[in-house]
Amino acid sequence: MRNTFHEDLDKISDQLVEMTRLAGSAMSRATTALLDADLHLAETVIAADEQIDALRKDLDERAIDLLARQQPVATDLRMVVTAMRMSADLERMGDLARHVAKVARLRYPNSAIPPVMRSTVLEMGQVAARIVAKTGSVIAGKDIESALALERDDDEMDRLHRDIFNMLMDDKWTAGTEAAVDATLVSRYYERFADHAVSVARRVVFLVTGEWKPDYALDNEES
Amino acid sequence: MRNTFHEDLDKISDQLVEMTRLAGSAMSRATTALLDADLHLAETVIAADEQIDALRKDLDERAIDLLARQQPVATDLRMVVTAMRMSADLERMGDLARHVAKVARLRYPNSAIPPVMRSTVLEMGQVAARIVAKTGSVIAGKDIESALALERDDDEMDRLHRDIFNMLMDDKWTAGTEAAVDATLVSRYYERFADHAVSVARRVVFLVTGEWKPDYALDNEES
Repeated sequence: MRNTFHEDLDKISDQLVEMTRLAGSAMSRATTALLDADLHLAETVIAADEQIDALRKDLDERAIDLLARQQPVATDLRMVVTAMRMSADLERMGDLARHVAKVARLRYPNSAIPPVMRSTVLEMGQVAARIVAKTGSVIAGKDIESALALERDDDEMDRLHRDIFNMLMDDKWTAGTEAAVDATLVSRYYERFADHAVSVARRVVFLVTGEWKPDYALDNEES
Repeated sequence: MRNTFHEDLDKISDQLVEMTRLAGSAMSRATTALLDADLHLAETVIAADEQIDALRKDLDERAIDLLARQQPVATDLRMVVTAMRMSADLERMGDLARHVAKVARLRYPNSAIPPVMRSTVLEMGQVAARIVAKTGSVIAGKDIESALALERDDDEMDRLHRDIFNMLMDDKWTAGTEAAVDATLVSRYYERFADHAVSVARRVVFLVTGEWKPDYALDNEES
């Protein structure tokens, strides 16, 4: 029989899944706004970030309330603490989507991304969408297989990130310094988005397997 | 009379102060390594990041243990949760110092920073060192005045960050795309370092004043 604690935790888990949906939608729309120089779409992404922030606030208050009322210990306590860390990662992913949208807005009516780089950025957007969708499945289904598949998507993102830098360093780069600065930042935003998604998925794996790793061991950033 | 809970919390507070010291030292040394193209110094910064990670791990375990043993509620509970968020910010600041050091290492034996930009980057390093030292004082002394002064340093960092971008966008920029990419990333690392320092200081203020803000309200990033 489920007790109140686990019902509350299920609600928190549902909110985490909803945050993955919102972050994924934001990054997909930000990518389109960036490639199409769509000001209106960029504005909607920037405005919608408030929803993710509000969800995080609600989730964190719920978690603190749960700690105070139920006084969980051992694994239960770690689950609640871990959920709060996941919400921090997911909120940050929303911020990164907003950053991409802001670059789109800054360069409107032009696209910040030169033609030679469009297909790579499009792929980064697709990988970002895939990775956060899988993160949602991992949370919803406690699905460790998906969590492993997601690491491969992250490798793909790292490869695309390197492709961008190689293009920038190539003698054939003629799009100028402004475009190079934009591409550097945008590429980093996608890469960090994927890093946070991987962190969230790893946290789920550690909860499911009962393996408790220090937080910094989840940081897969190497840039 | 101090009870066990507050003694444990004092210990956690001491560790947070120590993390500010390590993060500040790392960023100061990374700045010197960057400007002097000092490979050895860069390597020491990269290696020393482990210490900050280990401190965070220890602090977080201590906090979770405190929650489990003492079952704090209300303000006491929020203090412990807030301390864990501060440790996350401070660990991230260590990562950012390491990133700066890695740029220095990547371009060795050259300096990644062209002469025209040296004084601005030097100032960014100085502001970063000041801001994190003040953050330490804020934590140690629960000093709200220092916290306010620190916001002005952050404004200064934002101004320097804009200066870098203005130099990059200037027609007179002749240092090439590689240097532009490096400067874009380095400038962003300093700016994020300051952002995290401000977040930590704001958390202290909210604890002291008893004003509890949602976590996202602490994020002063606007880029």
